[in-house]
Amino acid sequence: MKQKIRMGMVGGGAGAFIGDVHRRAARLCGDIELVAGVFGRNPESSKACARDLFVPENRVYTDYEAMIKGELALPADKRIEFVSIVTPNQWHFPIANAFLKAGFNVLCEKPMTLNSKQALELKATLEASGKLFALMHNYTGYPMVKQAKQMIADGVLGKLCKINVEYSLGWLASPNAGKQAVWRVDPKQAGISGCMADIGTHAEQLINYITGLKITEVSADLATFVEGRELDDDGTVLLRFCNGARGVIFASEVSTGEENNFIIKIYGTKAAVEWRQQSPEDLIVRSNDEPMKIYRRNWAGTCDAARKVCNLPAGHPEGFLEAFASIYRSFADDIHAQRAGKAPVGDYPGIEDGISEMRFLEAIVENSNGDKKWTKL
Amino acid sequence: MKQKIRMGMVGGGAGAFIGDVHRRAARLCGDIELVAGVFGRNPESSKACARDLFVPENRVYTDYEAMIKGELALPADKRIEFVSIVTPNQWHFPIANAFLKAGFNVLCEKPMTLNSKQALELKATLEASGKLFALMHNYTGYPMVKQAKQMIADGVLGKLCKINVEYSLGWLASPNAGKQAVWRVDPKQAGISGCMADIGTHAEQLINYITGLKITEVSADLATFVEGRELDDDGTVLLRFCNGARGVIFASEVSTGEENNFIIKIYGTKAAVEWRQQSPEDLIVRSNDEPMKIYRRNWAGTCDAARKVCNLPAGHPEGFLEAFASIYRSFADDIHAQRAGKAPVGDYPGIEDGISEMRFLEAIVENSNGDKKWTKL
Amino acid sequence: MKQKIRMGMVGGGAGAFIGDVHRRAARLCGDIELVAGVFGRNPESSKACARDLFVPENRVYTDYEAMIKGELALPADKRIEFVSIVTPNQWHFPIANAFLKAGFNVLCEKPMTLNSKQALELKATLEASGKLFALMHNYTGYPMVKQAKQMIADGVLGKLCKINVEYSLGWLASPNAGKQAVWRVDPKQAGISGCMADIGTHAEQLINYITGLKITEVSADLATFVEGRELDDDGTVLLRFCNGARGVIFASEVSTGEENNFIIKIYGTKAAVEWRQQSPEDLIVRSNDEPMKIYRRNWAGTCDAARKVCNLPAGHPEGFLEAFASIYRSFADDIHAQRAGKAPVGDYPGIEDGISEMRFLEAIVENSNGDKKWTKL
Amino acid sequence: MKQKIRMGMVGGGAGAFIGDVHRRAARLCGDIELVAGVFGRNPESSKACARDLFVPENRVYTDYEAMIKGELALPADKRIEFVSIVTPNQWHFPIANAFLKAGFNVLCEKPMTLNSKQALELKATLEASGKLFALMHNYTGYPMVKQAKQMIADGVLGKLCKINVEYSLGWLASPNAGKQAVWRVDPKQAGISGCMADIGTHAEQLINYITGLKITEVSADLATFVEGRELDDDGTVLLRFCNGARGVIFASEVSTGEENNFIIKIYGTKAAVEWRQQSPEDLIVRSNDEPMKIYRRNWAGTCDAARKVCNLPAGHPEGFLEAFASIYRSFADDIHAQRAGKAPVGDYPGIEDGISEMRFLEAIVENSNGDKKWTKL
Repeated sequence: MKQKIRMGMVGGGAGAFIGDVHRRAARLCGDIELVAGVFGRNPESSKACARDLFVPENRVYTDYEAMIKGELALPADKRIEFVSIVTPNQWHFPIANAFLKAGFNVLCEKPMTLNSKQALELKATLEASGKLFALMHNYTGYPMVKQAKQMIADGVLGKLCKINVEYSLGWLASPNAGKQAVWRVDPKQAGISGCMADIGTHAEQLINYITGLKITEVSADLATFVEGRELDDDGTVLLRFCNGARGVIFASEVSTGEENNFIIKIYGTKAAVEWRQQSPEDLIVRSNDEPMKIYRRNWAGTCDAARKVCNLPAGHPEGFLEAFASIYRSFADDIHAQRAGKAPVGDYPGIEDGISEMRFLEAIVENSNGDKKWTKL
Repeated sequence: MKQKIRMGMVGGGAGAFIGDVHRRAARLCGDIELVAGVFGRNPESSKACARDLFVPENRVYTDYEAMIKGELALPADKRIEFVSIVTPNQWHFPIANAFLKAGFNVLCEKPMTLNSKQALELKATLEASGKLFALMHNYTGYPMVKQAKQMIADGVLGKLCKINVEYSLGWLASPNAGKQAVWRVDPKQAGISGCMADIGTHAEQLINYITGLKITEVSADLATFVEGRELDDDGTVLLRFCNGARGVIFASEVSTGEENNFIIKIYGTKAAVEWRQQSPEDLIVRSNDEPMKIYRRNWAGTCDAARKVCNLPAGHPEGFLEAFASIYRSFADDIHAQRAGKAPVGDYPGIEDGISEMRFLEAIVENSNGDKKWTKL
Repeated sequence: MKQKIRMGMVGGGAGAFIGDVHRRAARLCGDIELVAGVFGRNPESSKACARDLFVPENRVYTDYEAMIKGELALPADKRIEFVSIVTPNQWHFPIANAFLKAGFNVLCEKPMTLNSKQALELKATLEASGKLFALMHNYTGYPMVKQAKQMIADGVLGKLCKINVEYSLGWLASPNAGKQAVWRVDPKQAGISGCMADIGTHAEQLINYITGLKITEVSADLATFVEGRELDDDGTVLLRFCNGARGVIFASEVSTGEENNFIIKIYGTKAAVEWRQQSPEDLIVRSNDEPMKIYRRNWAGTCDAARKVCNLPAGHPEGFLEAFASIYRSFADDIHAQRAGKAPVGDYPGIEDGISEMRFLEAIVENSNGDKKWTKL
Repeated sequence: MKQKIRMGMVGGGAGAFIGDVHRRAARLCGDIELVAGVFGRNPESSKACARDLFVPENRVYTDYEAMIKGELALPADKRIEFVSIVTPNQWHFPIANAFLKAGFNVLCEKPMTLNSKQALELKATLEASGKLFALMHNYTGYPMVKQAKQMIADGVLGKLCKINVEYSLGWLASPNAGKQAVWRVDPKQAGISGCMADIGTHAEQLINYITGLKITEVSADLATFVEGRELDDDGTVLLRFCNGARGVIFASEVSTGEENNFIIKIYGTKAAVEWRQQSPEDLIVRSNDEPMKIYRRNWAGTCDAARKVCNLPAGHPEGFLEAFASIYRSFADDIHAQRAGKAPVGDYPGIEDGISEMRFLEAIVENSNGDKKWTKL
């Protein structure tokens, strides 16, 4: 009988949002089993959480260092094969670094670290470890995002010219937006940026994932609308790309009434694509020479790369969770490959995305604070 | 340590669609474990399927009778606590009936049986058994369907007048639509109706679920567009309701280009609601006296009954799978209650929905074949 | 210098809705001048209306008979070249008949007459007169309706199978819906049907216009939801077509919250089209073999027949008025042809549409009142 | 009998786009008559155009100076009461200035002049003349734009924080985009900017019209994507407003596949509005505390200011032309007032909008060419 992949988790205790999504995504895969973890810093609530998750009490640890030690003490065929890190930002680096050093595969929430220095250090650790590392940028897991990527790779859009990204949420419009909000605008926990670290990095990463283009220069206007916040809760960034394309990211967590309105529009000389996270089953393709087309997930026209991450027939809506799970699926496939001594495929965001997002953040924060028009990345 | 709920499955072998959805829905719950089953009629492929599902080989059976016998031979705390029946229609009744008689809880795909006689017999068996029974009408699991139901119960729509339901798919437009298609238009496997049994029953059940209204008379025009088919692949039904409301269901599996386009519009004297399965996060509310409102899942305005089945914040799309899983969640909650000797809540479709859908099918087939304008239910 | 076409009008006095639309549509053409009329039955308000419309007082008449007499008394190059009839239904026939007999071209609001007997009589008059006759079914004037018609004529949809039409309004949901409402549900003014005469005829005519298919059998359920009304304010009709296609029209004027929600969906063996009057710039084309396409007015893919009635570039929304005006444009072109002794083109609805809509109305009213399943047309 | 308002036109000859729109808008008003003009610089084609427009040959002039002279030579009750200027940009100022000086009312296409110096000079001329001046920013004529303006004035949105405007067209993506395109990217005819003068000014003006907020600082990145063009065909501008709000305008005429995609989103502390020119009948209103609302033109919730410019009931689509015509309507109303010796209402864009748009253009061009982050207006 086959063995399920053994997963550990750090973070994701009571009241957490993203930790629960990670667990549900892992469950969906069917071959991943959560067997160990630190579910928050309060040992009692961590244990309670573990009970609800059917994690044995002796695999619940007080902190990540104890977890590494405890797991290493187990026989190789019992200990976790990877850890998911779902803590606030400032813990990503030390935990990821430590698990990699200890010889565990790591799947880490974004943003990867607090700065590019940590990011580069993590890269060195990763390379020395020979282990697997995934950075959870879940939006890359959507089938129609992969469809956009493929169409661009196939030249359907011609030369890319303009990239406009909107990412608007309203949840931080009020000063007291709950537990999830507190750490995201606290420099100690979140780093040098609030809104842009939280969602601007998704925008930067998704552009790069879909188009393959690197941002070379930025000009930014970060803002803090809610009094007393130490970090930005809103920002707009002008973009220049390596190939001469231009663009803009406008991201906000104080856009009243917006849910999770992430829209990317990419224009080339021949055609353009538009993808809207809140209607993720559609990829809108426009050109001057043909009627507008809406590619629908798993319907005619869906490319192989997109079909591979489809679970349901067209018209049976898939969403955020399935996109998330498709990252877990690819990561788990690489662990199976690892078991079999095969090379990993690496079809998920990773260390380079993390380095890139840190450089992006550092550049826009510097630019926004200065008088210079452009800052190079 | 808590024990997961032990689930068995009959059907859902290689190439099956809905069986896989059931398993993924069960997995999402987190506290359900698939431990036994008959995954198709070919023993070898059934075993192969079981291996992929981490079901132990000694719990894979050659047929449902062997499964009942085998499971009954196990100690009570090992044997399955419920079986999911995901076979073609003609097997629903014998299997459900047998498992109930043997003392197992049953979750069964729709349509419940082949005719109302079987439906009533199953009801008798169920009542004698004291066990739990759920009928999988997954669309009732969507949060915004529950929102519609609640708003109508609260009187927001006033007296209901008109109910229009469209359910269009294009997949059976070609004569050879694959394995999934074959049995759905084979009278031996599907019963007296093809399209209407497959999706018309969803329409009838959803109307009843949301509005609480019973259909009292129908006038139907069932059609078979693809030559050689023995059952309807399309149909339209005029509806009259107990309260004087009127309506129409038009359902088709030969509507070229349609994916799974299920739309329900309900008009009352004060307001109206519209829900579209392919955009399930929205509930559109219209009235003559106010601007159009779009209630969004888990956003302001979402009622408790809907929030209870939300997993993600607004703007993070949920879909078909989560709706499916919410039925599993409620059924699993009742099994926990059963373990604890508590009364079940029954917040899922059941035996009465199955009886109702059979009477509806029998009435429309009779009417469509005759010269009489109306047939009473 | 060229001469503008001289137009007269009967109806369309103070508070009228459709008369004003006719006048604005005529104005848009640029070569039509309103020079005479009877603007309602009250002579004073008719004169006041005329003043606002720059119609000379000596061309304002007390009734249509006086108007015919007065205009005939003028020299041929002064008298009106056509009359627009925009009265309640019961006046359509006598006025149109009288003007045709007197040698005037006629443009008449729908429904053409009160019954098929009048319709046939009008046809005889028309044929004897040698004059031009247009029936105002304005929805046929929309570019994307013409696009649908052309694509079907070109065989893009294959053999047509299913035609579903929805036409929902909410304005008659309350008992007192104003002046416009009163006559529409008064048998003396509206004829044998309320809702179906008002909007069901649009549905029937549009189906025929776009597809070229004739309805051969109907089964109907007309309803009156608001107490005290003598005519239907709602109805649903099952349709069978000459080529074996099936369909449904559901029309309602008591669908709370609906504005003017007219949707037609036509499914063929190869592809399907959907047009929504409230988003008239789009024609949605679906098939099982290609991504969904949205043909946009005057964008790539628009056929010549549609482009001919486009006034603005794509993305500059046109609407109801332009569609209306395109009927006037075609009718005016035929009057120019008439002046030049050339044959008319007849690119607008006419006498046959009027006969057809009367037969349709008579059949559905008869069927709805009886016990027979089907009524032949 | 009343007299129609006598209108003249400069520009709008064969092949022109906007001139024809002006004429159709004027016609829609019903009380405006085109009686004189210079329809392009070729006298023969100007005369031919005039014939089609029913303009008498003796009122067709060779140039605008001749037109002023000719019209002044007519008796006051024959000569034009206003002139519409629909030429390329560089002619706006000299023609408007001359007509105002000669005592004519002027309605002028945007952008008003080539620079702010001209704009201020025109203002001086206007003030000295005592005549009426309208600047055609047609988007302000849409009912739902007026609805947005009113809701903001009423405080529904709270304090405004963020304003995001997109204006994307694809028509200049190819180097040869026809006659309309040539002058728009020719510095001699268009001025210092191409795309931003053509559509960026609409964005700037609409923001100011709806919100009442002035832009105080800009940071811009203008681009020219098609080789050989001397002016920008694309640009993005960061905005800072007098009240602390931030925003962005991204405008492009090389966004392949876009028609006339003008979207404005305005976020306040309490609520937000979104208006899309291609779906102009909707105003989307969002907040964190209520379900999303879609205000529909002329439906419940429409304010008086918006209703005033509605011509048709809700659900009967109005569009670009009606918005245009509503500017003409207001301007014509002021001419009626002028006739009667009453004060004008001025409910249309005017001289201040023209000055503002010139300052905006000059600031963004200067900023885009320099290294400074921000340029003050």
